Amino acid sequence: MIDTFNQRLKKDSMQKNSKLCIGLDIDPDRMPDYMDKSLQGIESHLKDIIDSTTEICLAYKLNMAFYEQFGFKGYELMEKIVSYIDGRNITVADGKRGDIGNTTKKYAIAIFDTIGFDSITVSAYMGADSIIPFISNRAKGTFVLCLTSNKSGKDIQEFKNNNDTMYEYISKLCNKLNINDNIGLVVGATNPENMEQIRSLNSLPWLIPGIGAQGGDLEQSVTISNKKNSIGLINVSRGILFAGDCSIHDVVKATENYNDKINGFFK
Amino acid sequence: MIDTFNQRLKKDSMQKNSKLCIGLDIDPDRMPDYMDKSLQGIESHLKDIIDSTTEICLAYKLNMAFYEQFGFKGYELMEKIVSYIDGRNITVADGKRGDIGNTTKKYAIAIFDTIGFDSITVSAYMGADSIIPFISNRAKGTFVLCLTSNKSGKDIQEFKNNNDTMYEYISKLCNKLNINDNIGLVVGATNPENMEQIRSLNSLPWLIPGIGAQGGDLEQSVTISNKKNSIGLINVSRGILFAGDCSIHDVVKATENYNDKINGFFK
Repeated sequence: MIDTFNQRLKKDSMQKNSKLCIGLDIDPDRMPDYMDKSLQGIESHLKDIIDSTTEICLAYKLNMAFYEQFGFKGYELMEKIVSYIDGRNITVADGKRGDIGNTTKKYAIAIFDTIGFDSITVSAYMGADSIIPFISNRAKGTFVLCLTSNKSGKDIQEFKNNNDTMYEYISKLCNKLNINDNIGLVVGATNPENMEQIRSLNSLPWLIPGIGAQGGDLEQSVTISNKKNSIGLINVSRGILFAGDCSIHDVVKATENYNDKINGFFK
Repeated sequence: MIDTFNQRLKKDSMQKNSKLCIGLDIDPDRMPDYMDKSLQGIESHLKDIIDSTTEICLAYKLNMAFYEQFGFKGYELMEKIVSYIDGRNITVADGKRGDIGNTTKKYAIAIFDTIGFDSITVSAYMGADSIIPFISNRAKGTFVLCLTSNKSGKDIQEFKNNNDTMYEYISKLCNKLNINDNIGLVVGATNPENMEQIRSLNSLPWLIPGIGAQGGDLEQSVTISNKKNSIGLINVSRGILFAGDCSIHDVVKATENYNDKINGFFK
């Protein structure tokens, strides 16, 4: 029987000796002047990055906004990049999608079948309807926004009723829905105390943004997420993509550095 | 000075004598067999619908999932449809996007500048960061998910702290952020009591899904949303697009019927 997404995450992580996810968020505004900022230039640069880091990192995350800013040609580029990765690494569609059931099903087709991503990030303001259509295929993963790394997130996420904060409620809801072992949580790296609390609730895997440019604590993120025999996928976008002079040499060096740092916490 | 989005909504509504929004959510699964289900066939059918209804309705809403299911070619079709409408009617990108500020800015570029939509729907699980980058251009509108028409939505949206339910909190937050007069709320048609409560809080315009296939109450939706000199944009998707035998004749008849019904409540 084919592995569930959460099983694959752990297996691939062991095999590649990595918990690092590279955020392939292209942004011409941040690219130095010497680089070719056309879509073709960006495509070629991304493919070079993938070929040079595929053996080092566990996963690639594409934030869809950075591709959609170019319209359908950017959307096509996103498809090409996923095809180019071609199963060598786990791919995450960071689209924070979420709608009513009938429509969410169409997003599942778009992300998993048409583009071929392995997993997606989901915003669950519309409740379980925004999650359920994504999880019917056990090989495909769904990371649900739980506690994010941005400041204003807490206004919603730390909303508290008599029993729970919103992020605790989401964590419990996801654990309940996780019958196909393919749900994870998005947990930002910026608040160790809350991270401990979320990890205490269950052992769902985490996707962890907020390291690097956003100032999250790497050691705490790694240590806390991996408790209870679980796993935390550490995402770094700008800190790798725009490392040094953006050359492949500097990108690879930054990838190796992050990977070594993460693995160092287990020694 | 150019009108704010909310001013335009009211002016256009008066001028067109309509509060109806047609949801152009193409779905080959629901199209009868005699129709051409290729993307070209769909494009031609949608253009016929637009030409036949542009004088009757106020706005068109495109749920992005229905276009994204076809990959970049669907995304391109969405761009073509918005170009084809060409300012004749208000357009809504129903994408329920939302991310941290830096990324939300890219979505604003994608939706407003690259595709040219007049407005967007936003999911604010990440707080004000998911809203602010969309509202800097006063001519462009942002409808924030407040209370939705699906059943599981209430688990999150009726979450209650000492002061507010989540949907009340969102309504107040949006009202506070509405300095450019271009924020509205998504309020589903399915619960008149809660609708009254949300309308009592402020006079932000509403985008109202849930009429037709989802069983919402049209009269209540129209009456409540238009209190306090505000406006409610009534969205009908399946009830118009798949009316009768899906012929243009039946689509126009359904559009006229809905428009007349809505206007009838003001007599």
